[in-house]
Amino acid sequence: MSSTLSIRPTFADIQDAARQIAGVAHRTPVVTSQTINARTGAQVHFKCENLQRGGAFKIRGAYNAMSRLSPDERRRGVLTFSSGNHAQAVALAGRVLGIPRVIVMPADAPAVKRIATEEYGGEVILYDPAREKREAIGRQVALERGLTVIPPYDHAHVIAGQGTAAIELFEESGPLDFLFVPCGGGGLLSGCAIAARALSPGCRVVGVEPAAGDDATRSFRTKELQTVDNPRTVADGARTPSLGSLTFPLVLEYVSDMATIDDPTLLQTMFFLWERMKLVVEPTGALGAAAALHGVFPITGARVGVILTGGNVDFSRVGEWRSSLESHGSPTKSA
Amino acid sequence: MSSTLSIRPTFADIQDAARQIAGVAHRTPVVTSQTINARTGAQVHFKCENLQRGGAFKIRGAYNAMSRLSPDERRRGVLTFSSGNHAQAVALAGRVLGIPRVIVMPADAPAVKRIATEEYGGEVILYDPAREKREAIGRQVALERGLTVIPPYDHAHVIAGQGTAAIELFEESGPLDFLFVPCGGGGLLSGCAIAARALSPGCRVVGVEPAAGDDATRSFRTKELQTVDNPRTVADGARTPSLGSLTFPLVLEYVSDMATIDDPTLLQTMFFLWERMKLVVEPTGALGAAAALHGVFPITGARVGVILTGGNVDFSRVGEWRSSLESHGSPTKSA
Repeated sequence: MSSTLSIRPTFADIQDAARQIAGVAHRTPVVTSQTINARTGAQVHFKCENLQRGGAFKIRGAYNAMSRLSPDERRRGVLTFSSGNHAQAVALAGRVLGIPRVIVMPADAPAVKRIATEEYGGEVILYDPAREKREAIGRQVALERGLTVIPPYDHAHVIAGQGTAAIELFEESGPLDFLFVPCGGGGLLSGCAIAARALSPGCRVVGVEPAAGDDATRSFRTKELQTVDNPRTVADGARTPSLGSLTFPLVLEYVSDMATIDDPTLLQTMFFLWERMKLVVEPTGALGAAAALHGVFPITGARVGVILTGGNVDFSRVGEWRSSLESHGSPTKSA
Repeated sequence: MSSTLSIRPTFADIQDAARQIAGVAHRTPVVTSQTINARTGAQVHFKCENLQRGGAFKIRGAYNAMSRLSPDERRRGVLTFSSGNHAQAVALAGRVLGIPRVIVMPADAPAVKRIATEEYGGEVILYDPAREKREAIGRQVALERGLTVIPPYDHAHVIAGQGTAAIELFEESGPLDFLFVPCGGGGLLSGCAIAARALSPGCRVVGVEPAAGDDATRSFRTKELQTVDNPRTVADGARTPSLGSLTFPLVLEYVSDMATIDDPTLLQTMFFLWERMKLVVEPTGALGAAAALHGVFPITGARVGVILTGGNVDFSRVGEWRSSLESHGSPTKSA
């Protein structure tokens, strides 16, 4: 249990994180589908983080960061801000570690995520994402109460923890030609890209965003940090305003390309995964699959990895989602 | 590839079926859930036939039966009648084996099941279940065209094939105290009960039906074959009118008890499996889980098996299902 972490995480830090989270995070399955291989002409390996504890990959980073706190920091507790899955992960990791935790969540987060967070025992503070900034609220409460902030992505231990998903994927799949990773704040993306560079150097790592929240894609192309303000997309896990000060340079250095997916294509892909793979994947969790299935990348004949990042779906919205697809007609391709 | 099958299938026939279907049917995973174990106080092992080829256990029986046909029978082709999953299985097995197949389906079968059947290459004949009997239509077409009928459950090779699901479950779980199996025509139930008697003699095998189609439960209790006429239930895979002449005596001899589940409880259980296990299970497929979670069986401290029989969901109905749950309020227990 080493804490010798540089601010900028390395592959060694990801390997260290893998040891740290062993026995707490699940080693999730890697699955394939004959239907999808036939349709794409590729060999597609899906890393099922929707089957992870807490329903998303986030426990990897949250536990890796929180388990390294000092006894004094643990006693005082932690705080985080998150649209949902990181909140659940901090609440769950805190329960495992016996650490008090305060979660600052947007009031419009899916009810299923808020309820699950409360069930894991976190104290939830709601804010209005159209009027307030979660970082400001969070840092003020943390200061007042002496809490350690566990941010959702811009933290070296969090990034290293998320990268363990890619280590496990490569251990099962072998080297890959492409790896498609959903991108919100870039924690999972940069962690996986660092791991890919070490374990499968020829692999093109592609970050995938919702089209309405394309800040990371624009940041990647312009090489200057771009932001987006509370984007309207069904991908609630990727409504982050921008990459972080830690993740942005990592994305520039390790990621091969970025892609965007519009909401109809994303929902169509999500329902396809439900229908054909019988796996519940949330909209954000289907971003990588959408890029693999509907993108313009030359994956025919390739070995492809896709991270299915989460499965915390608000099923009360399914009717609305299907109606929007029917009114929209055939989804368009974008990449 | 022996064909020495008595009309009344035995455990040896199920073992033979396991060899016959190896490499064609998937060996599906057996999964557990910490949430469900904590909630029930039991160790619950879910056999994920929703992840089976064709989306349901039915390929086991269909392939076992069809792969034993003579060259002449194969050339002439097969016919079946099914509300959906057996139809898909016959279509799929026929594609694998190169056998022409005609499927007689009710016009109100879920569109997703009809479309999948057509995609596998079966010729589909629709009928009105309120006005016509599928057996009569099917046998007439079969006679006219010289087709071999592959019935959905009342056939020794089909029953033996379905029983292989229980062999695989016991191989992973070890002996069980309870095994909950959805029951339509009783093919899966009787096959699994025969396997349980041999592999886990103390195991109580419980067949589970929708409350609106409780013919098998009444047949079990009265020891006389009872029927039900086109029952109204979301469990479309268990709308069968009665047990068969083969399955009824097997159910009487090998099954320990029967339970019924009302539709609200069934839907609530189905959504619980979607939300907590991230597995897409269809209404009929959740019958066994509903009995384990909401039944009156004393499963606390017990080792429990549940067959999740299928995952072919018509997602266009999700909004309607959720509305019906909200208007109904809290589901009631029944067993």
